[in-house]
Amino acid sequence: MIRVAILGATGYTALELMKILLRHPEVQITTLTSRQEGRPHVASIHPQLAGRVDLHLENLGPFEVVSRADCVFCCLPHGVAADNVPHYLDAGRRVVDFSADYRLDDPAVFAEWYGQKHPDGGRMAGVVYGLPELFGEKIPDAPLVANPGCYPTTAALALAPLLAAGLIEPRGIVVDAKSGVSGAGREPKLMTHFPECNESVSAYNVGRHRHTPEIDLVLSKASGQDVSVVFTPHLVPMDRGILATTYSTPTRDVSEELLLDTMRKFYREAPFVRVVDHLPGTKDTLGTNFCDVTARLVRGKVLTISCLDNLIKGASGAAVQNFNLMFGFAETTAL
Amino acid sequence: MIRVAILGATGYTALELMKILLRHPEVQITTLTSRQEGRPHVASIHPQLAGRVDLHLENLGPFEVVSRADCVFCCLPHGVAADNVPHYLDAGRRVVDFSADYRLDDPAVFAEWYGQKHPDGGRMAGVVYGLPELFGEKIPDAPLVANPGCYPTTAALALAPLLAAGLIEPRGIVVDAKSGVSGAGREPKLMTHFPECNESVSAYNVGRHRHTPEIDLVLSKASGQDVSVVFTPHLVPMDRGILATTYSTPTRDVSEELLLDTMRKFYREAPFVRVVDHLPGTKDTLGTNFCDVTARLVRGKVLTISCLDNLIKGASGAAVQNFNLMFGFAETTAL
Amino acid sequence: MIRVAILGATGYTALELMKILLRHPEVQITTLTSRQEGRPHVASIHPQLAGRVDLHLENLGPFEVVSRADCVFCCLPHGVAADNVPHYLDAGRRVVDFSADYRLDDPAVFAEWYGQKHPDGGRMAGVVYGLPELFGEKIPDAPLVANPGCYPTTAALALAPLLAAGLIEPRGIVVDAKSGVSGAGREPKLMTHFPECNESVSAYNVGRHRHTPEIDLVLSKASGQDVSVVFTPHLVPMDRGILATTYSTPTRDVSEELLLDTMRKFYREAPFVRVVDHLPGTKDTLGTNFCDVTARLVRGKVLTISCLDNLIKGASGAAVQNFNLMFGFAETTAL
Amino acid sequence: MIRVAILGATGYTALELMKILLRHPEVQITTLTSRQEGRPHVASIHPQLAGRVDLHLENLGPFEVVSRADCVFCCLPHGVAADNVPHYLDAGRRVVDFSADYRLDDPAVFAEWYGQKHPDGGRMAGVVYGLPELFGEKIPDAPLVANPGCYPTTAALALAPLLAAGLIEPRGIVVDAKSGVSGAGREPKLMTHFPECNESVSAYNVGRHRHTPEIDLVLSKASGQDVSVVFTPHLVPMDRGILATTYSTPTRDVSEELLLDTMRKFYREAPFVRVVDHLPGTKDTLGTNFCDVTARLVRGKVLTISCLDNLIKGASGAAVQNFNLMFGFAETTAL
Repeated sequence: MIRVAILGATGYTALELMKILLRHPEVQITTLTSRQEGRPHVASIHPQLAGRVDLHLENLGPFEVVSRADCVFCCLPHGVAADNVPHYLDAGRRVVDFSADYRLDDPAVFAEWYGQKHPDGGRMAGVVYGLPELFGEKIPDAPLVANPGCYPTTAALALAPLLAAGLIEPRGIVVDAKSGVSGAGREPKLMTHFPECNESVSAYNVGRHRHTPEIDLVLSKASGQDVSVVFTPHLVPMDRGILATTYSTPTRDVSEELLLDTMRKFYREAPFVRVVDHLPGTKDTLGTNFCDVTARLVRGKVLTISCLDNLIKGASGAAVQNFNLMFGFAETTAL
Repeated sequence: MIRVAILGATGYTALELMKILLRHPEVQITTLTSRQEGRPHVASIHPQLAGRVDLHLENLGPFEVVSRADCVFCCLPHGVAADNVPHYLDAGRRVVDFSADYRLDDPAVFAEWYGQKHPDGGRMAGVVYGLPELFGEKIPDAPLVANPGCYPTTAALALAPLLAAGLIEPRGIVVDAKSGVSGAGREPKLMTHFPECNESVSAYNVGRHRHTPEIDLVLSKASGQDVSVVFTPHLVPMDRGILATTYSTPTRDVSEELLLDTMRKFYREAPFVRVVDHLPGTKDTLGTNFCDVTARLVRGKVLTISCLDNLIKGASGAAVQNFNLMFGFAETTAL
Repeated sequence: MIRVAILGATGYTALELMKILLRHPEVQITTLTSRQEGRPHVASIHPQLAGRVDLHLENLGPFEVVSRADCVFCCLPHGVAADNVPHYLDAGRRVVDFSADYRLDDPAVFAEWYGQKHPDGGRMAGVVYGLPELFGEKIPDAPLVANPGCYPTTAALALAPLLAAGLIEPRGIVVDAKSGVSGAGREPKLMTHFPECNESVSAYNVGRHRHTPEIDLVLSKASGQDVSVVFTPHLVPMDRGILATTYSTPTRDVSEELLLDTMRKFYREAPFVRVVDHLPGTKDTLGTNFCDVTARLVRGKVLTISCLDNLIKGASGAAVQNFNLMFGFAETTAL
Repeated sequence: MIRVAILGATGYTALELMKILLRHPEVQITTLTSRQEGRPHVASIHPQLAGRVDLHLENLGPFEVVSRADCVFCCLPHGVAADNVPHYLDAGRRVVDFSADYRLDDPAVFAEWYGQKHPDGGRMAGVVYGLPELFGEKIPDAPLVANPGCYPTTAALALAPLLAAGLIEPRGIVVDAKSGVSGAGREPKLMTHFPECNESVSAYNVGRHRHTPEIDLVLSKASGQDVSVVFTPHLVPMDRGILATTYSTPTRDVSEELLLDTMRKFYREAPFVRVVDHLPGTKDTLGTNFCDVTARLVRGKVLTISCLDNLIKGASGAAVQNFNLMFGFAETTAL
């Protein structure tokens, strides 16, 4: 039985993580932390967990957490995560970090996009990026895994096979993504206030969304060439789900069959990527750890369409998938 | 041309009010106030008004506003409204007040439900309640009109005809109401954060919603007897609309035909109440100043079903209807 | 391993049933039936099941199904179900029937509400109503279990404890219920066409919804007295979830504490009913087999508020709960 | 007073058209047609119009309609429209046609994309395309105006100024569009059944949506060069609104300022196009005849973002705008 702590347990990813871990036969959640005052019961924060998890959210430091947990899921905000993670690694605990802090490999790029100095920059380059379909062989031995961003997972799972096979040009790939609102987190803001975002679609953070360098990096690593994308996220009035439509230029004469076959071969042993012939919708993946992908050829452009549940394959499901690989369980356990 | 000021112009009711007044041939909006810093352009607060209203939101006191406006629409919060309204009345300006401050007639009842002392309690009993279908004859001469709450309007328009005709018992009437989220205002809160309230229905403020004494009072006044309701509001994942289903006990043997005929006679000359045979949905009234009502007899209980757009007939449309009556325009102008 | 067949596998309840049974360690789904032409693969009907269920929908009669299944989940429409179920019972198979055909106990009442003669009326009175929290002791030995309607489960779980304890009057109980759209099934109709029902709330089938006699009957059986309700269903723009608000008259002086304590004692050993102090929302139960209930006392009326996921505790989760009891598995298996 | 007939009055565009025309001081709606049996009252088809329009839907041929109307708004499906329109033109009536039948100029292209022979192909090349911002000078004298498709309007209003100024390459422009569900019409289908499309985003008709050649043609005409786009429509869970994000390659070194200035100059006298600095959302244009557009420069690509209400500027508002120009009224009347 692996004892698990969840740092920053008030948000949606922590809630979803708990719901998945409750089904895991080898996990015991022992500790939930939060800066909230008064040691609230988890069910008062997440009513969905009433009668299922009997723990309080505690304002604890690493010292107490280390004594109670073998593995730490860190759901703290970027910047804050990198202040905390080193303590757990030093104490020999293994960590799955949900923040962006260890996803990039260069402190300068982090500073450019996140507008702050990285508190643990020296560690960045060595951290494993937790997308098992691309970097799975490195995860079992990793002390720390950087859990991927939801947009990078959606885009990368569609594009990596085609880039790795050299079928599409690596520069100027358009990634037009549409996300449900839970991706913006649980803190109330005007943008995510129901009467503002319901019955509306809009683009946001155009040209400056922080997942841009992450998509570049993961695709560059996965294909051994310098990839850059034009990434535009859109907010869609639904709870969960991301759909990414990408547009790229083929390097040579290709057919839809070749594109789909290339994807199928690439994911032959990946239990959570479904290469489909039809046009998938996010609802096909709702509540699951699947990513559905397909490809089309339209007027000389290569299109990919991929979708997933941003809180599961885009966050907490991926985290458990990483956890399973780290601790030697079957990759699909509890998923 | 009537010069109009809107106090507290950042919210949804002010936005809707502006959209209606833009269509009014006899109105010029001259002044918008807000406590926001920096004199923002109205289009930066309400992008829907870009190119349609060229005004800035200003942090003004009564002195400046009085010099620019013949009529003041007060969209300030309860408590704050009653601090401001007297200044405008004293200066001879006419006021339509959107807050709850002048809807009740008893400072003690106000204190009980709103948890604070009324700053202008002496005036309460004399203020006209601005539901033209029930108290229309008093509105033309009123210096100050208390614009009704959205729930009270929905419930009262359905129940008043039956109570006035003595067809239903006045005590213990169940009012089960369902509202869209815009009724909760524009300030972001967890309850109205998209991923919290979307795909969910819940009751709130059960037994203690502040519209309860207002429904009691308006129905008591309209029917000349002591009416009391059990009022339960529910939050429904949609932008706009209220539907109220009421359950009461007939005082004698009644038929659905009698109930509907009673309603039809009562509203013979009311341009904005549609007594319908079918079961209305809130969408039938979306974006309009109509309230649709019907009645049913089920297993010995009288049911009424009524619906409206909470931001129009439930707020800003009603305000313009009151304004039209106050200034001698046709009641339906701009509506 | 229990071999399971699902009759009528194209709808939402069948989809949800498969998703639950996939997690059940003692179940093998062997057969899916449908009248669709051409033996479609289940993933072409339910893309969510791609890669998870590798079966085709077949147009089979009882003879073939009996040879492949120990237990039959019948998701056929009312009327059709009772034409099929007897064949399986005669062949010694156990059946969980999702239709309304065996929920009532009187063919005359069925004919009155469903407008057709019951094809197997003689069996009705002896069939166990599959609400384990009320009739659990009869389920283990039942050859046929009538899986409850979604509204009756929601209302009955809230009201049964109070009626059984004699705390509320059994006649004239108001049940005002709000349901998501999946409850209306998967066949496209104008009422459930997105632009018609989105952003709208409406009551439907007022005074003539077929769940009315079912609610009466289950509460009468559960409390040993003649119960009758005034039941009003409403359609709410969300996928899943039912919330029922009930209004009844106490038989004597009661407190909220007494109401909640009575509920808590009643459900002491029920794993899927959560008696909560707060006002629950349907999202608290989304995707789970829980029903959350609470009670309030408002101006002399007893209110209950209960909610559940109509496709799980209101349909397929309840079916698996019944299946577990019928076949001797832990009641919570796979739920 | 212009007497108006609406052919095919059961759909959403006809409903929206009536709501707009009710505000038009120079219009009298005299005739509504439909193939529905029994001469239903318009309020029984569109409850929103109860008490506002007192007409019946009649199954009439051109002979009767011609005698009652000066202008015909044709909301019939493609293929059917071109069977009817010539009769009205021959009788000297002016027509605004909502269908796709007269938007293209080549019967062969129509046959290729619509899969049927055009019944009135000889007329196609001479018909004015009713996008006043691009072809406004031809509309006043046109006997027949082809009302544009919703996607072509959204895309063309953003791209036309940049193409006309030679700032972007005319080939391979990516148009990634997101639409609310009302764009799919009022006939219930599985794709637009609430529980299917709610809480989901998907692409549809990829590479074969019929608005593709229309976008090509209107942009080619507007810019005097051969334009071709890669157009991908997506279905978003909301009633109304289209947002189009386009990606193109600049022909030379450009700045965002230049892009925005070019748009502003182009639309200097267009009352319904708002060139905005911020990123617009569809809700900014909901219920209005505005199209909001902006531009960005991201990593060497030119992005445009444009949005509108698909039933107003994308259909019925544009139709009234065309009508106003055809009959010599101010372009903004009733809009």
